[in-house]
Amino acid sequence: MKKAGLWKKPVDFMLAEAKNAFCIAAQFSSGLKQKMLRDASREIVKQSSFLIHENQKDIRFAQKEGLTDAIIDRLTLTQDRIRDMARGVEEVSKLPDPIGCVLAKWKRPNGLMISKVSVPLGVILIIYESRPNVTVECAALCIKSGNAVILRGGREAFHSNQALIRVFKKVLARHRAPLGFVNIVPTTDRHAVDYLLHRNQDIQLVIPRGGESLIRKVAHISKIPVIKHFQGICHVYVDKKADLKKAVAIAHNAKLQRPGVCNAMETLLVHRDIASRFLPAIGNRLRRDGCEIRGDQTTLKYLPWARLAKSGDFGHEFLDKILAVKVVQTLEDALQHIRTYGSAHTDAIVTEDHRTAKIFCGRVDSSSVMVNASTRFSDGFQYGFGAEIGISTDKIHARGPMGLEGLTSYKYIVEGSGQVRI
Amino acid sequence: MKKAGLWKKPVDFMLAEAKNAFCIAAQFSSGLKQKMLRDASREIVKQSSFLIHENQKDIRFAQKEGLTDAIIDRLTLTQDRIRDMARGVEEVSKLPDPIGCVLAKWKRPNGLMISKVSVPLGVILIIYESRPNVTVECAALCIKSGNAVILRGGREAFHSNQALIRVFKKVLARHRAPLGFVNIVPTTDRHAVDYLLHRNQDIQLVIPRGGESLIRKVAHISKIPVIKHFQGICHVYVDKKADLKKAVAIAHNAKLQRPGVCNAMETLLVHRDIASRFLPAIGNRLRRDGCEIRGDQTTLKYLPWARLAKSGDFGHEFLDKILAVKVVQTLEDALQHIRTYGSAHTDAIVTEDHRTAKIFCGRVDSSSVMVNASTRFSDGFQYGFGAEIGISTDKIHARGPMGLEGLTSYKYIVEGSGQVRI
Repeated sequence: MKKAGLWKKPVDFMLAEAKNAFCIAAQFSSGLKQKMLRDASREIVKQSSFLIHENQKDIRFAQKEGLTDAIIDRLTLTQDRIRDMARGVEEVSKLPDPIGCVLAKWKRPNGLMISKVSVPLGVILIIYESRPNVTVECAALCIKSGNAVILRGGREAFHSNQALIRVFKKVLARHRAPLGFVNIVPTTDRHAVDYLLHRNQDIQLVIPRGGESLIRKVAHISKIPVIKHFQGICHVYVDKKADLKKAVAIAHNAKLQRPGVCNAMETLLVHRDIASRFLPAIGNRLRRDGCEIRGDQTTLKYLPWARLAKSGDFGHEFLDKILAVKVVQTLEDALQHIRTYGSAHTDAIVTEDHRTAKIFCGRVDSSSVMVNASTRFSDGFQYGFGAEIGISTDKIHARGPMGLEGLTSYKYIVEGSGQVRI
Repeated sequence: MKKAGLWKKPVDFMLAEAKNAFCIAAQFSSGLKQKMLRDASREIVKQSSFLIHENQKDIRFAQKEGLTDAIIDRLTLTQDRIRDMARGVEEVSKLPDPIGCVLAKWKRPNGLMISKVSVPLGVILIIYESRPNVTVECAALCIKSGNAVILRGGREAFHSNQALIRVFKKVLARHRAPLGFVNIVPTTDRHAVDYLLHRNQDIQLVIPRGGESLIRKVAHISKIPVIKHFQGICHVYVDKKADLKKAVAIAHNAKLQRPGVCNAMETLLVHRDIASRFLPAIGNRLRRDGCEIRGDQTTLKYLPWARLAKSGDFGHEFLDKILAVKVVQTLEDALQHIRTYGSAHTDAIVTEDHRTAKIFCGRVDSSSVMVNASTRFSDGFQYGFGAEIGISTDKIHARGPMGLEGLTSYKYIVEGSGQVRI
């Protein structure tokens, strides 16, 4: 922060442009925003050769740097992927406008009419890792919600992201919208990010998307409110009154449908009364599909081939085909375990007992609680939001899967006829 | 933060108790919370001699320290004031329970039933200045909303606050509620506050209530989200289409009904077309009631007795019988002025032109916007919330006057019948 680099001038310029653009964009009609997004969707497809050309620069850089094939794959833009991105923008264009909604309206005895109306937040900074489709998604959601956005993608995707934003700016210009509505940090210098994270006068919200270390770093440095989740340590608790067929299907799906994501199950808790029937059933299915099991002593009685769990395995985010398993004595034990090791992301119970489900839902203090459903459903699209800008395990502002509504605030409009306070 | 004092052990104990209490209190029924608050209200009256006795210690201390009469007056508990506090708690007891409300509920095509249900935030830290009634108000609102609260009042009110919290704890004990539900920082050591502001694992929200310097200090130090407003630089804009009778009444009320509070008007903006008629009318009324006017050149043409405003007078929070006045050329000028000098608290327009009012409401980015009503209405009680824990000019979480709803978050409860994700 002491000596500012060459990046400072363009970054300050970007901040001023974004702030200015917000004042105008906050007033955009639903129709204009929809038209711009539809136009952006078409323009992305139209510019696909340009996008692929710029993307090649990133790929060559990644190859030179010796990045893994997995990263290079995530980075690569193809005609298909570009069409998918464009379709995503088209979908966002069709969502209902989250701005200007009258959230509540009431009349006071003195005749004042009070309305609570949704408004955009202002300037939003989004910091994320390599995939260029995130750039397009975030830009589209911010346009839809009238927020000016500053994007900061991974260094590996620098040229691709710049190119994508150029496409958006072209569309903005065509509709005479301020170009500062959508911005990308014009440098890969890390100091520029630290600088931005201190600009709480200019930026209203930061959303980091990526691995835990990125998120922790952002949360640690930022002077601006950060909406985030650090980890997804999701539990499935199979109650003594569970339908075991459902339980096997849910546990298998929660662990293996996509093990590398934040809403995958990391620990399975099993009530002792059904352990002897349930554990062999789920254990063998998971094993067959290549999942390693790390169980407590009791689990090993039923799954002798499993590994003995170390204490660090509980509360660990494997993001892999590895599952910690524990047999619990009571519902209370399960709740205690989740309270100790959970990350307030998503936890599930499988039970046919309505009362037990209710206690579980009340006492698990997580952003999403599932009853007889896979933790994998904790997702903005699955909830029907039509979009997802992130998942929050915070208690402040947005919580759980965060769609367009999470990108809004509100104001009170009070209409009177000359009332004064007595 | 380096060497912890003797306060650390009791403070850590308090944190652990609060966290624990939250887990239990979050589940309290509406009935129990209501009973406890009614009981607390009665107990406060019953213990009035004890409260006055403890309050005397603070008053003697304040006199010894040479604090002003105004501070000592604010600090003093009388039988009447105690009864008022008790009545406040009784009122809160009657408000609807903000917890467990189904904010939205919908069914997905795959049969999943998704509910968004209000939950308490967790542990809330409230830092405030001398008046002991704030202690009672905050404790009551947190009990009602199922949040564990840690209170930190002014040093001057230390004994009074301790005594009030003792009364609450007595009531909690009587209802077998955890004593950690309501806490007061057991030391006046300032390092304890800095320490608490870093405990973002244990405390979910900080609300500072008091002067700007207190709030800035808290916001600067805190690692925990802070809900706040720094200043209330409220504007009234009198449009060319204003009903001048209403305009005079509103401007006079906004400035003088209670000049020392955050929703009092600090700057009056007047459209040039009506300046010659409006300014003498409001100017003379304000002058008669002892209000100093600091106007721009044009204002002085109509109010030759007024002082010429210095640049620092615009955007200044006088909190006194002083008003900055400016004549603007257009609505656009007024909006620009508010954008430059406002604090996003409350701004008002007086106009009979519906279209102008609509533009003003849309473009003023403040937490409350008034049309033909005094800025003094920006208040939780005036909005009908039945309570106010503070006013927020933030965009994140609660905005504007903040009642019980601002003390809640939500969780998603997803009920299925064995659904897995495909």
